[in-house]
Amino acid sequence: MTEIRLFVPPPLARGATIAASPGQAHYLAAVMRRAIGDTVLLFDGRTGEWRARISGLSRKAAMLTVEEQTRPQAPESDLWLLAPVLKRETTEWMVEKATELGVARIVLTTSAQSAVTRTNPDRLAAIATEAAEQCGRLGVPEVVPPAPVARVLAGWPPRRHLLLADESRAAPPAHAVIAGAAAGAWALLVGPEGGFTEHELDGFRKLPFCLPASLGPRILRAETAAVIGLGLIQALAGDWQDRPGGRPHDAATCEGKSEDVRSVGG
Amino acid sequence: MTEIRLFVPPPLARGATIAASPGQAHYLAAVMRRAIGDTVLLFDGRTGEWRARISGLSRKAAMLTVEEQTRPQAPESDLWLLAPVLKRETTEWMVEKATELGVARIVLTTSAQSAVTRTNPDRLAAIATEAAEQCGRLGVPEVVPPAPVARVLAGWPPRRHLLLADESRAAPPAHAVIAGAAAGAWALLVGPEGGFTEHELDGFRKLPFCLPASLGPRILRAETAAVIGLGLIQALAGDWQDRPGGRPHDAATCEGKSEDVRSVGG
Repeated sequence: MTEIRLFVPPPLARGATIAASPGQAHYLAAVMRRAIGDTVLLFDGRTGEWRARISGLSRKAAMLTVEEQTRPQAPESDLWLLAPVLKRETTEWMVEKATELGVARIVLTTSAQSAVTRTNPDRLAAIATEAAEQCGRLGVPEVVPPAPVARVLAGWPPRRHLLLADESRAAPPAHAVIAGAAAGAWALLVGPEGGFTEHELDGFRKLPFCLPASLGPRILRAETAAVIGLGLIQALAGDWQDRPGGRPHDAATCEGKSEDVRSVGG
Repeated sequence: MTEIRLFVPPPLARGATIAASPGQAHYLAAVMRRAIGDTVLLFDGRTGEWRARISGLSRKAAMLTVEEQTRPQAPESDLWLLAPVLKRETTEWMVEKATELGVARIVLTTSAQSAVTRTNPDRLAAIATEAAEQCGRLGVPEVVPPAPVARVLAGWPPRRHLLLADESRAAPPAHAVIAGAAAGAWALLVGPEGGFTEHELDGFRKLPFCLPASLGPRILRAETAAVIGLGLIQALAGDWQDRPGGRPHDAATCEGKSEDVRSVGG
């Protein structure tokens, strides 16, 4: 029986009884056909993951009694995605994938060539929550409603690298940029379907924290660029070593890589 | 005006007049509002990319007169994806993304826990063609109809690495596996939503060409694993250096990376 994970409001503690949301109750009773006495996993983004037992259940309400902690809370990777607003299904898909890839914060942005500028914040929050429940995360990323990208970049934390998905032939490959950067937190900036204008790109390239990078010789759709860029950052400078909160930069060097291979007997 | 790229049957040659398909004619006339005298780019997977002028146009038919070659044919990256059959929209999305990422061949597979085993080959071929037109490729990947994964792996070319997306904690990180492997062609193997069974995984791990690898600490959906795995292979051992047909393995070492950065003045 697949183990169900549900995100609930903090705090969780042994013996506490939690009222599930109507949607969660319907999911448990009608979709997953669970019964009183079955167990589920709960996480709240603050106090880790806990096993709970269904102590009351109807299609409209469920009571969950917390038993023991299954995982302590651990810091999640400090990775941001500055993502364009795309058409509804595509934006939702991008939010789901970014959550699976462990981003802490998805900042939706508009720019000169944005064709779409509005989103449904509740719907995107629900998608991020469901993706976090399914991928095993201990927290749900924040989805920040759309703002002009220039405003988002004003007052940027100077020590956070901004990897710019840059389609111009001049940009070095992203994996080289990531491996060559100093240790630090990362963000990925991706433009809208029409791309950023040359004027916008010139402005970004002048920012001291901005690292223009190529995502390969083909023209990627915006959502593809977002997913590939996030995957490369997590693999080469993020949390793919299972060390909560990321890993030191030097572990991303080739020496680090071969050690990793040896250390797991691969 | 966005430049339109269309895939047409070979061969293309200066002065040739090509009859577009009814779908392409409708796209040119009704969707993109092109007129006689406008230009489009054509590619056929064999003779490169050519500029052509619309010499006849209705909503049902279009004649395209080939003028000059804009890009010679170049070998595309020799990368395969062994992908599970997923629900229709998800399979279609995966085929689109894999095409954007430059795969030569998408082999659809079924295995013990496959919930879906059928696809619509014509529809998937059309999606791959459209994605190839939009991402600037000079060819369209082959989409091979579903077959049991065991049958696909029987008679596997022994020199082609098979990167196995392995969710077990024991697998080393994919970027380390890719960077540590000998030069050679690659394929990525991803399981269905329910994953491969332990029995299937044990069998795969015994194959001399199989390289089990982790795609990070979170549980990725099958289509996310496919896209991230392909992106890592292309970046670290594929064609992200714009060298047609991929790049020597040693260019994927750290020394190679820093050279890349310098060589483009990054």
